[in-house]
Parts: sequence; structure tokens; C-alpha cells
Amino acid sequence: MQIGMMGLGRMGANMVRRLMCGGHECVVYDINPKNVADLVAEGAVGAASMEDFVSKLSKPACAWLMLPAAITGTNVEKLSGLMSAGDVIIDGGNSYYQDGVDLAEMLASKGISFVDVGTSGGVWGFERGFCLMIGGPDAAVQRLDPIFATLAPGAGDAGASTPSDTEHLRTARQGYLHCGPSGAGHFVKMVHNGIEYGMMAAYAEGMNILKAANAGNRTHDVDAETSPLRSPQYYKFDIDMAAVSEVWRHGSVISSWLLDLTADALGRDPDLAGFSGRVSDSGEGRWTLQAAIDTGVPAPVLSSALFQRFSSRGEAEYADKLLSAMRLAFGGHHEKPKTGA
Amino acid sequence: MQIGMMGLGRMGANMVRRLMCGGHECVVYDINPKNVADLVAEGAVGAASMEDFVSKLSKPACAWLMLPAAITGTNVEKLSGLMSAGDVIIDGGNSYYQDGVDLAEMLASKGISFVDVGTSGGVWGFERGFCLMIGGPDAAVQRLDPIFATLAPGAGDAGASTPSDTEHLRTARQGYLHCGPSGAGHFVKMVHNGIEYGMMAAYAEGMNILKAANAGNRTHDVDAETSPLRSPQYYKFDIDMAAVSEVWRHGSVISSWLLDLTADALGRDPDLAGFSGRVSDSGEGRWTLQAAIDTGVPAPVLSSALFQRFSSRGEAEYADKLLSAMRLAFGGHHEKPKTGA
Amino acid sequence: MQIGMMGLGRMGANMVRRLMCGGHECVVYDINPKNVADLVAEGAVGAASMEDFVSKLSKPACAWLMLPAAITGTNVEKLSGLMSAGDVIIDGGNSYYQDGVDLAEMLASKGISFVDVGTSGGVWGFERGFCLMIGGPDAAVQRLDPIFATLAPGAGDAGASTPSDTEHLRTARQGYLHCGPSGAGHFVKMVHNGIEYGMMAAYAEGMNILKAANAGNRTHDVDAETSPLRSPQYYKFDIDMAAVSEVWRHGSVISSWLLDLTADALGRDPDLAGFSGRVSDSGEGRWTLQAAIDTGVPAPVLSSALFQRFSSRGEAEYADKLLSAMRLAFGGHHEKPKTGA
Amino acid sequence: MQIGMMGLGRMGANMVRRLMCGGHECVVYDINPKNVADLVAEGAVGAASMEDFVSKLSKPACAWLMLPAAITGTNVEKLSGLMSAGDVIIDGGNSYYQDGVDLAEMLASKGISFVDVGTSGGVWGFERGFCLMIGGPDAAVQRLDPIFATLAPGAGDAGASTPSDTEHLRTARQGYLHCGPSGAGHFVKMVHNGIEYGMMAAYAEGMNILKAANAGNRTHDVDAETSPLRSPQYYKFDIDMAAVSEVWRHGSVISSWLLDLTADALGRDPDLAGFSGRVSDSGEGRWTLQAAIDTGVPAPVLSSALFQRFSSRGEAEYADKLLSAMRLAFGGHHEKPKTGA
Repeated sequence: MQIGMMGLGRMGANMVRRLMCGGHECVVYDINPKNVADLVAEGAVGAASMEDFVSKLSKPACAWLMLPAAITGTNVEKLSGLMSAGDVIIDGGNSYYQDGVDLAEMLASKGISFVDVGTSGGVWGFERGFCLMIGGPDAAVQRLDPIFATLAPGAGDAGASTPSDTEHLRTARQGYLHCGPSGAGHFVKMVHNGIEYGMMAAYAEGMNILKAANAGNRTHDVDAETSPLRSPQYYKFDIDMAAVSEVWRHGSVISSWLLDLTADALGRDPDLAGFSGRVSDSGEGRWTLQAAIDTGVPAPVLSSALFQRFSSRGEAEYADKLLSAMRLAFGGHHEKPKTGA
Repeated sequence: MQIGMMGLGRMGANMVRRLMCGGHECVVYDINPKNVADLVAEGAVGAASMEDFVSKLSKPACAWLMLPAAITGTNVEKLSGLMSAGDVIIDGGNSYYQDGVDLAEMLASKGISFVDVGTSGGVWGFERGFCLMIGGPDAAVQRLDPIFATLAPGAGDAGASTPSDTEHLRTARQGYLHCGPSGAGHFVKMVHNGIEYGMMAAYAEGMNILKAANAGNRTHDVDAETSPLRSPQYYKFDIDMAAVSEVWRHGSVISSWLLDLTADALGRDPDLAGFSGRVSDSGEGRWTLQAAIDTGVPAPVLSSALFQRFSSRGEAEYADKLLSAMRLAFGGHHEKPKTGA
Repeated sequence: MQIGMMGLGRMGANMVRRLMCGGHECVVYDINPKNVADLVAEGAVGAASMEDFVSKLSKPACAWLMLPAAITGTNVEKLSGLMSAGDVIIDGGNSYYQDGVDLAEMLASKGISFVDVGTSGGVWGFERGFCLMIGGPDAAVQRLDPIFATLAPGAGDAGASTPSDTEHLRTARQGYLHCGPSGAGHFVKMVHNGIEYGMMAAYAEGMNILKAANAGNRTHDVDAETSPLRSPQYYKFDIDMAAVSEVWRHGSVISSWLLDLTADALGRDPDLAGFSGRVSDSGEGRWTLQAAIDTGVPAPVLSSALFQRFSSRGEAEYADKLLSAMRLAFGGHHEKPKTGA
Repeated sequence: MQIGMMGLGRMGANMVRRLMCGGHECVVYDINPKNVADLVAEGAVGAASMEDFVSKLSKPACAWLMLPAAITGTNVEKLSGLMSAGDVIIDGGNSYYQDGVDLAEMLASKGISFVDVGTSGGVWGFERGFCLMIGGPDAAVQRLDPIFATLAPGAGDAGASTPSDTEHLRTARQGYLHCGPSGAGHFVKMVHNGIEYGMMAAYAEGMNILKAANAGNRTHDVDAETSPLRSPQYYKFDIDMAAVSEVWRHGSVISSWLLDLTADALGRDPDLAGFSGRVSDSGEGRWTLQAAIDTGVPAPVLSSALFQRFSSRGEAEYADKLLSAMRLAFGGHHEKPKTGA
């Protein structure tokens, strides 16, 4: 079937490619004409403006947006002004689901359906397929089924079918799921990313402890400001980070796709010298926490993972300074210089 | 080759079965004669006592123990009294690696090698193979290579080989790894389990938030003791827990073996009515934290995961009572009854 | 000066009493006529309805609200309909500061000033005075200075003046502070309560550890589901909780008013048998976290404190069940019954 | 009475001074002769060696050590070789209580009593008195009562007596408490410091959030790596950190001695420019967590506080790098440069 795609960054472009491979017709638009031209060269129908984009969509039109969360809302509003009753707007970006709930209500008053699609799979999606978490009205979601089926990975990659498989899990087993009304797709994707933060942090903390397993070989200061390692004889291991992450991929309880990627990264450079350790977060982890707070659900692991990212960016500095100031005030403890380990 | 196995619980028995399938000769012993008889019926050589067990091992003898951590040390000591220089004792249980370091030193004085093997794979190990993290002297580890190769899963189950694979990762790619001197195997397994706790908690917290996504449909009290849900319109989703865990298995960033098991469990009963939520921990999570503390490595996620298990067992009760006592003291806030949600 | 007080619960009534002791004239109103009558008996001017309340205030009128957060907004709106340009509405409840920002804007369009006052001191405020954190336009805040000065504790109770005292800290040293424009008062109070949660949890966790200092005297199961206490000889202390909390009040680094209250509560009943451990939270802790998340500031301690309250109310149950389900799935670990400790 | 003091650093010297003010005779020793000479000039009896020190103590001798934890054990052993049955050794440093349990057992075999005294009060102890948490045999503790009574603050500084005061709380109300057998004093002090870490972190995190209350005035990047501030209008407050910490000292629920010191520090420099934010920890926080882990008590707040200190010293770096490596691997997210905020 025909689909329009607006926003041809990494994710959007790869989705277009996968859709074209699946035999769908793609109308594409991006504020950067180069991105449009690239996909036209691969067989897409290019558009030079938002108006041109909409005009090239057959009725009822389906327009899929892959834009940064910060500008999705304004683009949906603008786009909806060019569309008409019966059309569908799909937001596949990492948008806040509450915006989706609000947009759906606004669009419904114009007869336009809003479908929100949480999309996981990252830069590997073209090859592996995208895992799709979908929210929206039944009719619109149903109409888009061929698109979802093409984008999703299919059942193949997840090993043997589990005993719990039943008919109503059919699309879930293909890698796409209609999760509920508008907003539900982004809600489920948001929680997915919250979990992702927690898993990533679990691996990262564990690997950091492995890395420190040779602490008993380091020398330590003996002073009131330094807590001595009581039993250095137990910390004499030089662990091969790449090999450990590789062995865990084979038959261990913590094998996962994230571990596959970790083993690959550590295989290339076990010291990770190419990174500084300034970790971004792009919103979903924060929103997951807000949902936990709103609904009174404890989320100590997911919050710890998020806050460690904030700390990695230096955002704890004032708090840390205040701790040092208090220690000086009550105990006369002077800060050790930053460069000392 | 021949190997002795002492401790024929779930794990030990399945390891014997996998070893026999691989053509190895197994001498087996357990304080429960029924466990011995079962494996004798499948082809193992049975022993009636620890003395009998050792006497049936050809020299140099290799005796593998699969016992609860609390009784491993005394059994190793007793066993070592029956063995002689050149023999090897292997501890494959969930022992504390520091005990392994100490045992190795004690056994070395008798000329006996100590090999510690952290073993992951659980009840699925017979079928999938066991992921083995090995510590000990080179010669002893080398001698046991055929045993490790049979117990391990082999390369097959982890999908395409990653670009970082090199020769020195050969055994890691088969699912077993010599991690370092005695203690290193249990150290790596310990951290593995610490990570496992973190990953499990990440999924559990996320699924709990999904479960609460319909909080806006519940009614709430309006009083000073209850924080109202400010925007109930955003919490109206009834999420199908089984279907969501299933869809995430296909192409998402958080796909993993733990998620496969989670999807299966939720497919059987999305309400998990068969569980009360009293979560045990068997030591490795605690030891991982102690290693983090000893070496000064931050582990907020792994500690949160462990502490939530303690809380699930009611161990926060006195602290919680004290919080209520303080609230009453400074604010006149009377506790709401336990049954109110 | 004259002030109107609406909402005569614990806090509101005590504020009226303290104001009357300070020579101010109080017009009082509450939906419960009994509350009005009680204060009229002590010298206040009573009102029978909101209209009556406003009519009894001399122009320009100052009306102070002490209501639950959930109903403050609607009452401010209704009240503002009865008031006129030049009047001041003060919200002294535990309202969300963002509502204050919005209300201020709405009221400003009618010429009414909005002053938000975060109020700490709880049920002890009548005696000790209330610590006041104030937001709002300069003129209105200035006009209310005599009221604030009476409600605040004055400098007396905080011991010797610190070297940093300067003129601009004058009111802060009396216990009230104009923190910024509308919303700033409740913002500072919100963070105050976030800190309070963290401090309370620090004491509660520590006391819980002290309580467990005799764990070495308990007997433990030896099985794979129970992590044994490795060194029971170090956990043989029966700590006198009341005496410890008392001694810490005298010269220790952790002395505080919360500790004074804790020592008093533990002195009455060191086992806290009158409490079940179901800990409420009334909003500010949640809002503090949302502010941390919005601004990217790490708050691991404040969030842990909040989430422990959620857990105390059973809100981790589904997550805990899922952990048990996973443990059964990968390791064949059956849950121990809830009653086992 | 007479007492010997060995270790004349900040704490030890001030304790000697307070004891001499109370009329006690102090024999003093330190490896730095200058420290001895200073106190001799103030009236103490100086010793030139450990032997000289012991020889100047009347029998039965009482020797108090104030040394770094890392060297206390060896000094106690050496000292005990010079002392005789009936003597008392007191360790007033921040030693690990388990060492105290072991030392007491060793010394008991020589007839020497070991008393461990956890000491809080820091550099202010001379003036305010020291809060003393005492472990050891009844007779020895009883004999030292005049020393404890002098070092402790007395009842005066803690405001009105609470209703729970009874006779058995008598010494607690003076600021010293016999907590139990040898080790109990340092155990209680250890938990005291664990609580201290939690309280400090609660203030530090809260003040950090207040500092960020003007985040809505900052400009932000609009890209997929940056989570935008959704409602900048609510983050426009420039908070006066010094004034807020001052106002909280007067009548608020979070008033405390730590807050007094915080207000003083912020009064001197609200930006804390003299500190870099590298926060040391000296052992007790770690030991508190180990006690929590050993006894199965959840301590999420105390652990978060400790781990934040580790992070402040750069110890999360490898973990953070791994997070960035994973983000690049699955999502093509390139790290933003460290200098970007």
C-alpha cells in the first residue's frame, strides 16, 4: 500500500527502505532535500514541501512522521491543516504519550485518526525489523496492518515458540502489537525504554565491578580521608572484559541483544577509550519515572539508572560540593584534589 | 574422560546427564541414595559414601562438587583428606569466591588443585548447555577442557558471529572461559548474578508501571494523606501484559532470554496469581555489592534491586513503622489502615 | 492587622491562634461550622459562608487559605470571584507550586495578588512558630510582613547566630523568607519536604539496621533459597533503640528536630507496636522528584525515600511476583511461603 | 581521674583539652613530638615513646587511642604487650566494629579490657562536647564514667526534656551511652555515620534542585540527544541558597545541626567555589551497608548516598563509557562532547 514518510533521519530512512523492500509505495519528505533525493534514488516518490507531500498521497492518506519529540507536535498540527477527514497521521518518533493523547483528541475533532507507534530496533531495524508498539483507533490500526507487518521482524528471530502462544498473540509474535487507544503505543514504548535504561545500567555497573577486580594490586593512601581496602588478597583479578561479555552470550541467564552489542563493543576496545562517559538521555526514561510517580509505583532501579546518566553529565556537582563543604564544617576534612583517584 | 560428581540436586544431576550424553564416564555421589540410584539407572557409576566415591575415581582424580554454598567448604575439606597430590577438586556451586581463594591456598599445600566454576543456565542447562566461568591453575583447567566443552552450549545458540571474534575468544564463543586464578570463576559468576538481579528488577518495575497504566480509572480519596492523581485522563490504558512481553521479544532493544521466560510466564498467567511476591536471594547479589563497596565502585542499580528483594520479605517493616511514627509526631498524621490501597 | 483564614483544620486553627496571640484580628471560615465556633469562642470573628467571610474583611482584603491541595484551586477561583482588585489571596497549604504560578497569572488579570506560603512546623507550629517560605509580588508580601513576623518562630530557637548573618538574611533569621515570585514559596517548601523524606528515611534505615544487630542470635535455614549469615559472631547486639536515639541528640553530627521526635516516639514504645508501617506521602516528595527529572538533577536519595513509601503500601507486589516467576522459570526456585522470615 | 591519650590529631588533642578542663590528668603520646609538646604546654604529662607512655600511667592503667582505623589494630596489639591484667584499652577512633570484637577477645585472654567508643562531634567537640557511643565490659565502662561524663556535652544543649525520659536514659541524656559488649560502641557509631551520609545527601540533593530552579531561563538544544524542558515557565526562580538554608533553621521540620553548618557554609559562599566536589568517605558508610547486606535489611537511601560519593570521585567512568558505547551500538547515538552541559 502507499504511505507517506516525513522525517528522513536514520530511523525514517531505514523504515522507508524496509517498506520499499516489502513492495510498498513511499512518498517521502524532509526539510533537508538531500535526504529526500537519496531515497528518490532508491525508488521513493519525493516531495519538495509539506504541501507537495500531502498532495502526493492518495485518499484516504496515511502520513507517518519520524521527527524529534520537541518538534513533532507543531508538525502534526501543521500537517493536519493540509489533511482531511478519513486520513491518518502516524507518529513513530519518541514522543511523549501524553502529547499523543492530546493530539488524538484534537485530530478526532477534524475526523483525522491519530496512530502512535513506539518503534524499537534502532539502526539495526532495516536488517532485523522494527518492534512496533501501536496505539490508536481500531479502524486506522487495522488499515495499516500491511505496513506494520512489513516493518516488524516477523516471528523468525526469537527462537522456538513458547507454550503460551495463542491466537490473540499472533501479531505480537510477529513483532507488532496494538496496545490500546491513542497514546498506548508511546506509553508502552516509554516503559520499554525505561526498562532499557535499567538493563543497560545493570550491565554497566557489573562490568565496572569486574574492571575493579584488580584493586588489590593498587596502592592506597593511609590517612583519615581514605577508606583502606581491608582484604587486598581478594582483589587480584585482571579480567578480560571482552571475553567475559562474550562467554555470557552463550547459555547464561543474562544473555540478551544488548549483551551481544556490548560484547561486540568490548571486543573492539575493552578500554572504551573512544568514549568520555557523558551519557545522554532522550526523554523516555524521565517520562517512565513520571508515570511511576503519578501512579505510586516504586521504581528504584529505573530511577537509579536515570540519575546515574544525569551524574555522568556533571549535574551532581553542586550537591557534591555541598557534601565537601559539610565535611569541612563538621569534621575539618579538607577535600582531596580531584586528580587523586 | 572420567569425572566424579558429588551433589546430585537439580543442577548436579543435569550436568551428569549432559556429560554422559557427551561420552564421559561419571562417578556420582549424594547423601540421598535415591539421587544416586536415579543416575545409576541412566548409566552413571554410583558411590555409597564419600570414601567409596573417591576410591572409584582413576588417578589423577577429578571431583566436581555441586552443593549449597553453606556446606561446600566443609565438604571440600573432608574430600581433600581422601584425595592426594595431583588431584583436582572443582566447585561448581554458587560459592563465595573469597572462600575459593582461601580453599585453593589450603589445597595447594597438599598438592591438590582447586578449580572454581561459576555455572549459569539453571534448569535449562541440560538442554541449552551451561555457561561456565572458570578460575584455577592453568594445568588443571586445561586438563578439564573436554568436560567444559561438553557442558557448555557451543557457539550455535548465539546467532551470527560478531566482528570482534578473534582466536583468543575461542572458548568464550563456545560458552566457557578461563577467567583467571582460583576464585576468578566464582567472582565473574557473582557479578553475573548481580547483573541478573538488576535486569530482573528492570523488567519487573517496568511491567509494574504498565500494570498501573489504568490508575486513572480507579477512584481516589480526597484527603491530606492521599496524593491525588493530577491527570487521570492519561492513565486509562488496560495493558495486555502477556502480549507486550511477547512483542518485545521480536526486534526490540530489550529482547533477552529473561524476557523469553517472562513472556512465557505472563502468557500462562498475566496476573501471576500463583506467586505471593516474597523474593529470595541466594547470596551472589549481596557479594557483588560487597565487592562494589570494597573497591569503591558505584552500584546504585544493583543495590536497589537487592534491597527491593529484602523489602519484599517484610524486612523494611521497622523502618516503615518509624516513618509513620515520625509523621504522627511532627504532623499529627495518623496511619491509614493497611488494607486501604 | 486583620486577616481572613479559610480552612480551620489542625494547621489553620493553630495559625489563627498564634495570630490572635500576636494581636491580629482574624476572620475565620470553614465548611465545618464547629471549627468556626471553636475559634470564635477564642476571640475570632466567625463567618457562615464564603460570601460572609469576604464581606467581613476590610479592604484591601487579605484571605489566607489552609486547604488540602486537591481542593485549593477551585476554592481560590471561587473566592477570587468575590474579591476585588487590590486584594490578596494567600495559599498556605501544601499545594503544587505550578498551580500557584498558574493561579497567580489568572488572578493578576483581575488585579488580585497571589501569595503562596510554604509552611513547615506541623502540629508544633502554634508553640514553636511556623517556618514560612513565601512567593509573590513584592508589594503584597511586604504588606503581610506583620502577619509573617507573628507566625514565624523568631530568631530565638536556633542557637547562636552564625558568622554569615548579614542584613539581607534578617527575615530568614526570624524564620520567614520571601523566596521569589508567585510559586517560589511552594517550590522551596516542596524541596524542603523532599529533603524531609530523605532525612526521615536515613534515620529509619539506620534504626532498622540497629534493630537487626542481633541477627546472629537468630537461627537460619540451610538451603539454596536462603543466604546464610557468614559471621554470626558479629551480630550479637541487642540495641536499646530509645537510648541510642536519645544519646544522638546530644552533641552528635546527626542531631536534629526529627531526631528529637524520634527519640520521644521510641522512648514511648521502642517496638513501635502501634504502627503497621503503611507510610503515606502527600505529594511534595513526588513533585520534588518531578522537578529533579525536569531539570536533569540527580536525586537518588530523595527518590529512594519516596519509592520506599510506595513499597510500604504494597505497590511493589506485582513486580515482586514477577521476580519470583522469573526465578522459578530459569532456576526452578519455588517461592518460600510469605510467613517465613 | 588519670587517663592516657595516644594519637593527638584534631580529635585526640581536643579531647585531652576538654578532659583537662574537667580536672582530669592526661598522659599524652603521639609519633609527632610537636603534638605532644603542644599539649604539655597546656598542662598534660608528655610521653616520648609508647613505653614511656605506659610507664607514666598509674595502675590499673587506662589508655585511650585516637588513631586512623588502618593503624589502630597494630597499635592496640603493640600497646597491649606493654600493659597488664586489669588495665583498660579504649579505642575512640573510627574503627571497624568487627575488629573491636576480635581485639576484645584477644585482649580478654590477657586480662585486659577493651572498650570501644564511637565519638561524634568532630572539630566542634571541645566546645560542644562529644557524643559517646560505648561498647565493652560493664566494670571497665563503669570505671571510665567520670571520663565519659566530662567528654560528653551534658543535657544542656538539646532543649527541653522529652516526656519519655526515664532513669535508665540518664547517661543518654548527658550524651554518652553504654550500648552493649565490646564492638557495640563502634557498631552504633558506624550506623550513626551511615545515617549522617544519608542526611547529608538529602540536603545536598535538595539544594541542587533549588539551584536548578532557574533552568527555564537557560536555552536548550533541540536534537534527538537532548531531552527538552517541557514547561520552562515553571523553572524561572533564582533561589538565594544562603537565605533558604537559614530560614529552614527556624521552626522547620528539617532543622538540624548539619543544617546550621550548611547555612553557615552557604552564607560564606553560596556558589561553594572553594570546593571541587570530590567527596571522600572514611569507611563507616561502607561498613553500615555491609551490616545491612549481612542482615538482609534494605538500605536504599544509605547506599545511594554512599554510591554518589564514589561517583563524585570519577569511579563510575567505565560504566558511563559502556553506556555510551551501547547507545552508539544500538541507536547510532554519538556522545555529545563532555563540555556541553
